Amino acid sequence: MVDLAAAVPDLPRDMTALIALGPSMLQRVRDAARAGENGLSAADINVLAPIPRPTRNVFCVGKNYHEHAKEFHSSGFDATAGASAVPDVPIIFTKAPSSVIGPGQAIPASLDSTDSLDYEGELAVVIGEGGRGIRAEDAYGHVFGYTLINDVTARNLQSRHKQWFLGKSFDGFCPMGPTLVTADQIPDVTALRLVTRVNGEIRQDATLADLIFDIPVLIETISAGITLEPGDIIATGTPEGVGIGFDPPRFLKSGDEVAITIEPIGELKNSVEG
Amino acid sequence: MVDLAAAVPDLPRDMTALIALGPSMLQRVRDAARAGENGLSAADINVLAPIPRPTRNVFCVGKNYHEHAKEFHSSGFDATAGASAVPDVPIIFTKAPSSVIGPGQAIPASLDSTDSLDYEGELAVVIGEGGRGIRAEDAYGHVFGYTLINDVTARNLQSRHKQWFLGKSFDGFCPMGPTLVTADQIPDVTALRLVTRVNGEIRQDATLADLIFDIPVLIETISAGITLEPGDIIATGTPEGVGIGFDPPRFLKSGDEVAITIEPIGELKNSVEG
Repeated sequence: MVDLAAAVPDLPRDMTALIALGPSMLQRVRDAARAGENGLSAADINVLAPIPRPTRNVFCVGKNYHEHAKEFHSSGFDATAGASAVPDVPIIFTKAPSSVIGPGQAIPASLDSTDSLDYEGELAVVIGEGGRGIRAEDAYGHVFGYTLINDVTARNLQSRHKQWFLGKSFDGFCPMGPTLVTADQIPDVTALRLVTRVNGEIRQDATLADLIFDIPVLIETISAGITLEPGDIIATGTPEGVGIGFDPPRFLKSGDEVAITIEPIGELKNSVEG
Repeated sequence: MVDLAAAVPDLPRDMTALIALGPSMLQRVRDAARAGENGLSAADINVLAPIPRPTRNVFCVGKNYHEHAKEFHSSGFDATAGASAVPDVPIIFTKAPSSVIGPGQAIPASLDSTDSLDYEGELAVVIGEGGRGIRAEDAYGHVFGYTLINDVTARNLQSRHKQWFLGKSFDGFCPMGPTLVTADQIPDVTALRLVTRVNGEIRQDATLADLIFDIPVLIETISAGITLEPGDIIATGTPEGVGIGFDPPRFLKSGDEVAITIEPIGELKNSVEG
């Protein structure tokens, strides 16, 4: 555990600015890390979201696991027309940057007056080198690293407002963390396993190999017309097992604790506060 | 015409930072303006978008004029389920901040490989004082001013990807300007008239009184769970007369010129480049 601000004082303290410096920055950070710890212990640390305030909305992907696409389609909360549960092309929407909170911060259930709060455990990709027209075969070269996101959703608002943005963007609806692991530490992202627990009970358990549209396709699709930028975040979608997948739905309530785990990123745990 | 950077050098040069300073800033700007011009002429000016890089995505409202809601519903491009053309609650989506361009900059038609580029003339509200839980009756007190937006859309992408974000967020798909008029200069926003011309031909002609959900309701709806911030932009929706309102659709093509006018904001004119 290294205090980078002390070890390399001329580096920016903002994660997005740090990422924008590119590979030479990463080398300097690694050198500082190799030079050893500098007196920090876990007790000194208040873990925030790795990117507490993204410079624009978080890119999100809807219905990107087969079994979840089916559970969402049959839940009655999907306002999308058409008979097909599984989409032909990636469904892209956004979450407001002001919705980001860190590990251990409370998800404010009281903001959802419709009492339909739900969790969605997701792997999130953080972009390193930006660009437009990135081809799928080059896409992993643009990934800086990975973190976790809980795509918290007020289901009744998602459904009533048709477009998903509002019901997914309330303050505190985007827990993120606990770490941002650089891409080189994860040689095969498709081998990762995502587990979501609510009050200790396993609700979601899937591997990233189950994505309908994999990370290269997502990057190619978004960057076809939108110039991706360093620090952009793409949440890759959630697997089967969300609250509305149950009959009746099992919505989150005050006092619940949601924990999402992907190793080696760690556990993202947040309580729900009424 | 006053060069503020010269007249009041300690003011920030970034519009969002300027707006965040609140009413005292506006008084200083007005004093500088009253002190007279300082040698600038129109020929010296390169007009950019008033907020060239918003600090998060532009908030947008879908189907917010009765006649447009009907034309969009019957066009076949609306992927929203349900029989009702006119929404019960505001439909909120976003455009990426990287899509913003200024007056006179070209709309890049070549990015839309589906050849379905369309225009949407809109009044946009710029938030002054932020807040959460803003009530409709207090909402106008949170408006800093007004500008124009062309919510350029690749209709086939809007439809195929179900959620509207992607087909509306390509680089250059958000012309903005030409001015940001402070709220005190527009005593009754509902009396404004919006006209969109393509190559001189009037395509949209409506008054802001025709909004289904008016500006106070939009601010109340969004701020119910999302803390609004100074410089946030809310595009209020487009009236009848977009390209897909015609049969067959009249999509934009290279060489076309789109001009949106609302007085006293002025004319936002952009050509389409293939």
